[in-house]
Amino acid sequence: MIQLYHCARARSFRPLWMLEEMGLPYQLHLLPFPPRALRKDYLGINPLGTVPYMVDGAVRMSESTGICHYLAETHGPTDLRIAPGEPDYASYVNWLFFSDATLTFPQAIVLRYGQFEAPERKSAQVTEDYAQFFRGRMRTVTAALAERDFLCGGRFTTADVAIGYALHLAEVWSGLSGDFAPEVAAYLERLRARPAFQRAIAAETKS
Amino acid sequence: MIQLYHCARARSFRPLWMLEEMGLPYQLHLLPFPPRALRKDYLGINPLGTVPYMVDGAVRMSESTGICHYLAETHGPTDLRIAPGEPDYASYVNWLFFSDATLTFPQAIVLRYGQFEAPERKSAQVTEDYAQFFRGRMRTVTAALAERDFLCGGRFTTADVAIGYALHLAEVWSGLSGDFAPEVAAYLERLRARPAFQRAIAAETKS
Repeated sequence: MIQLYHCARARSFRPLWMLEEMGLPYQLHLLPFPPRALRKDYLGINPLGTVPYMVDGAVRMSESTGICHYLAETHGPTDLRIAPGEPDYASYVNWLFFSDATLTFPQAIVLRYGQFEAPERKSAQVTEDYAQFFRGRMRTVTAALAERDFLCGGRFTTADVAIGYALHLAEVWSGLSGDFAPEVAAYLERLRARPAFQRAIAAETKS
Repeated sequence: MIQLYHCARARSFRPLWMLEEMGLPYQLHLLPFPPRALRKDYLGINPLGTVPYMVDGAVRMSESTGICHYLAETHGPTDLRIAPGEPDYASYVNWLFFSDATLTFPQAIVLRYGQFEAPERKSAQVTEDYAQFFRGRMRTVTAALAERDFLCGGRFTTADVAIGYALHLAEVWSGLSGDFAPEVAAYLERLRARPAFQRAIAAETKS
């Protein structure tokens, strides 16, 4: 059975939600955040100490959107996948890569220098720099959602899991959702209403 | 013909190198860095003002590793692609996603607060924080290369383009290559010796 190491609200929520969307059996290992400091034994499983970490037979993966893509490609068939032959395939791939480097990393910086660091290491400037970076990049998401209910393919796909988590993070942790355009806020509500999303939330709040 | 918008040394080098590896015809548009400030007209092509930007018929893409993955999936067949059925497929996907969010973004922060910002906005602390972040994550690359010549699949693949660029960036721009383990330094030299890599360098230094 697939093993998933996860911290509540962290980007490991992507594979957790994806597993629920696909209806795949899995075992969830909930860790305190940050596991690198609070669960030293975890370094024996993932030497980087990061979440997510997924074990699937001989497979080991650490990248949240990468795991979602892997699950769609190898544990389907699933409508969450867009195939290379479909018209929106390029858009799908672009959203997958956009989700983490462009929309999640800036939030990690905002969280680090706005919340996590000791007072003397906090930085209002860097926090605002990357809040602004995030808001700038969000224009692409807003433009896409002005024309459609889901990001690509005319249906809910892995791209919505990947991008949807970044928006969820802005709402529940980084505090950057205040400037969401109405169509982005409505999209996030649609995603959150999904039974699989709600099961993922229930799974991470169980302990 | 594929159109690629690129700034010398920027992450748009990934698709440039990939196009050369695959032998695909393309037209290169070299822009000064940062194009957002120095080529305002570019915002008419890519509203985010970022590079890369690739136009392939009706396709528009902005994510460097995403473009490489798209090219391998749709413009092959090519040995640079690892298929879902191959043993190293999960590793391949993980490296692709690791390349930008985990190994390139921290270098962008080091460059920003160590080199690009005005003196009063520079930050030695943040620069060192993300230099350390980069060095920590590099342990995964070092461990992989201790056992093999290329990252996965027993051959040169898209994963080597994606990760190889992050290492190249550390050498030519962010200055973080000083701590590379010998096997990583040797790997980077192997990549740079490739004719396609050299053609990509020649293309970006032509103007």
